[in-house]
Amino acid sequence: MSADPVGAFVPGPSVRVEGKAGGPLSGLTFAAKDLFDVAGEVTGGGNPDWARANPVPSKHAWAVQTLLDAGATLIGKTVTDEVSLGILGESAFDGTPLNTRAPDRVPGGSSSGSAAAVAAGLCDTALGTDTGGSVRVPASFCGLYGIRPTHGRLPLDGMLPQAPTSDTTGWFARDAATFAKVSAAMLGEEIPAALPTRLIVAVDAFGFADPEVAAALQPMVERLKGLVGAARDEVMAPPGLSTWGRAQRTLQPAEAWSTFKDWVLRDNPRMAFGVARGLVMGSMVQEAEQGWANLMRTEVRARLRYLLPPDTILCMPTTPFPAVPKGLPVPVQTPLRDRILCLCAHGGLAGFPQVSIPGAELDGLPIGLSILGGRGSDATLIAVAEAMERAA
Amino acid sequence: MSADPVGAFVPGPSVRVEGKAGGPLSGLTFAAKDLFDVAGEVTGGGNPDWARANPVPSKHAWAVQTLLDAGATLIGKTVTDEVSLGILGESAFDGTPLNTRAPDRVPGGSSSGSAAAVAAGLCDTALGTDTGGSVRVPASFCGLYGIRPTHGRLPLDGMLPQAPTSDTTGWFARDAATFAKVSAAMLGEEIPAALPTRLIVAVDAFGFADPEVAAALQPMVERLKGLVGAARDEVMAPPGLSTWGRAQRTLQPAEAWSTFKDWVLRDNPRMAFGVARGLVMGSMVQEAEQGWANLMRTEVRARLRYLLPPDTILCMPTTPFPAVPKGLPVPVQTPLRDRILCLCAHGGLAGFPQVSIPGAELDGLPIGLSILGGRGSDATLIAVAEAMERAA
Repeated sequence: MSADPVGAFVPGPSVRVEGKAGGPLSGLTFAAKDLFDVAGEVTGGGNPDWARANPVPSKHAWAVQTLLDAGATLIGKTVTDEVSLGILGESAFDGTPLNTRAPDRVPGGSSSGSAAAVAAGLCDTALGTDTGGSVRVPASFCGLYGIRPTHGRLPLDGMLPQAPTSDTTGWFARDAATFAKVSAAMLGEEIPAALPTRLIVAVDAFGFADPEVAAALQPMVERLKGLVGAARDEVMAPPGLSTWGRAQRTLQPAEAWSTFKDWVLRDNPRMAFGVARGLVMGSMVQEAEQGWANLMRTEVRARLRYLLPPDTILCMPTTPFPAVPKGLPVPVQTPLRDRILCLCAHGGLAGFPQVSIPGAELDGLPIGLSILGGRGSDATLIAVAEAMERAA
Repeated sequence: MSADPVGAFVPGPSVRVEGKAGGPLSGLTFAAKDLFDVAGEVTGGGNPDWARANPVPSKHAWAVQTLLDAGATLIGKTVTDEVSLGILGESAFDGTPLNTRAPDRVPGGSSSGSAAAVAAGLCDTALGTDTGGSVRVPASFCGLYGIRPTHGRLPLDGMLPQAPTSDTTGWFARDAATFAKVSAAMLGEEIPAALPTRLIVAVDAFGFADPEVAAALQPMVERLKGLVGAARDEVMAPPGLSTWGRAQRTLQPAEAWSTFKDWVLRDNPRMAFGVARGLVMGSMVQEAEQGWANLMRTEVRARLRYLLPPDTILCMPTTPFPAVPKGLPVPVQTPLRDRILCLCAHGGLAGFPQVSIPGAELDGLPIGLSILGGRGSDATLIAVAEAMERAA
């Protein structure tokens, strides 16, 4: 990587791996969140003591290898919230990458550096991870295209896990054409020409967002209706988005604890207090609560299967509000973070693919419109994103 | 400070403040744990984000000023477990000061650097703090004299607090004469010539230590009997040292949480995972548990008042075993730390003065014998320590 005016890349020697010649992504550059292995490079995971416990990888992560094979050139590893535990993108160790679209605001996390690098034009695309919103939120906050693919569809080899039943590999782009090219390579599937024919407007999700956000997204919703055709209003989460949020925030921290407990108990790593507290809370989740949350996960999946038969997509605000100011006091930040996570919970619970589309603003701050489809409909969502840009 | 071959001093520019000429401690040097304010110097508190939240002090801490006024020269600030939360002296940020008497073992904490500096001969005495054992434990592990004074006797101005109802300022020395001189200055009281006349041997405390430790301390107990006279065996803690330990480990973490919560919630500081976990656990102590622990504190005070009328002292092992190896895995470390804290709990619960006297060894590792007296009997305990050295 070259200059890094936005603090998007991890400190240390620069990393560069040329893509294979003649691939479909030739000429494109990409960055990888520092949760992805790059052969011969430390995987830092956003924590100063992670690398100590984990050998330098000898192999690229699947996602890195896939982009290199398709011809894109890796130009750096990007800042992440510690071991992906964070949604705002303010790292106690590596700082807060600059959100070029909203310089006094957070970039969103945990794929903060990847989003910041793409938004600043430092690379064409960047790999992130999305367990509870870590691609979708920074995409919305930084005004980018971003995808959380169908859970379980893409191999996660060489990606630092958090909560495996929710973990996915996603990516960002500034424009729909690049987003489509990268997505075709990552998904191993052509982006179809045909668009879905039915649109569901998730009225509870729009109601959960700030009214000004719902209003700012309305022109995009109208454009989507024009492209897709038959639209109807539906409640997405009959028990409430907060109940879905509660289920995800039961399962994910408990699973994160089980992922990280051997490490934190053995190595006593340095961590931001809030990150450590989240893990400790995860260690205390009761079995009965987990049992309930797993039943709710079954219901969430059933609900989304019911809402999203073939040729149907659903739209909703990606986040309830645009990027929040940097450095908010914890008592102010906590309820905001809780609301963000409620709008993201279905991702980890159901594993359906979701794409955040930029194009709306509130007081100059970007805000994304998300579209969801049935499992495996990732390429169709990309096609809709392209059509949305063409129709803008 | 000059060379620091043992990693006892905090990194950064060296600190030196000359003592007043002609004082009783003229010619002596001392170091201060980095919880004590030194005018114009950062008080780091062992945590990389503490100083950011706290202004550089314009005034010396009471304890520092007292030693300077008595003529001792300050030569540095020493490594401490983070904000005094730790008993082994292994800091994730500043490393583990070398225990010169047991180089592959921990120095004990949280006054780790102060003990290590004195043990290595880098200074004559050093200030520590003792809330739950932070002077007594490193004194035992490093083979030093160490005192936890009567709680509430010495002003704690300019000392970073942890749990104010248990916090004290203590100090270390290698030999009894220096220990007595420093103690007279700190206590503002001559060390008396007369010794107590009754000795209690705390049979439950000796039973709580490893049998080899109890045996290794036996010659010192015999010497003490020879000096003090009438000795009798007593159970120190009728409900069990583990029950006293439980009470202290209810009150102290809850109080530490109340001391630090504004800071950690506002600043999200970097912390070792285990330190953060301790604070989180402190935040969860139930009111009913605190109520019980406060009642137990009343009982502990009553028991020690009963056992320690004037002219009576009690002896016990300072720690249940010598310094443990460095870098033990947490599951191995936890029960060892728990046992150490049970033997120290009476300090914070009752606030009676205690002096740890070196002179015994187990397999070449130092182990201290502690003597306790009634409230205010600090100087008498120092006199006993001197007599013990003379009689050795």
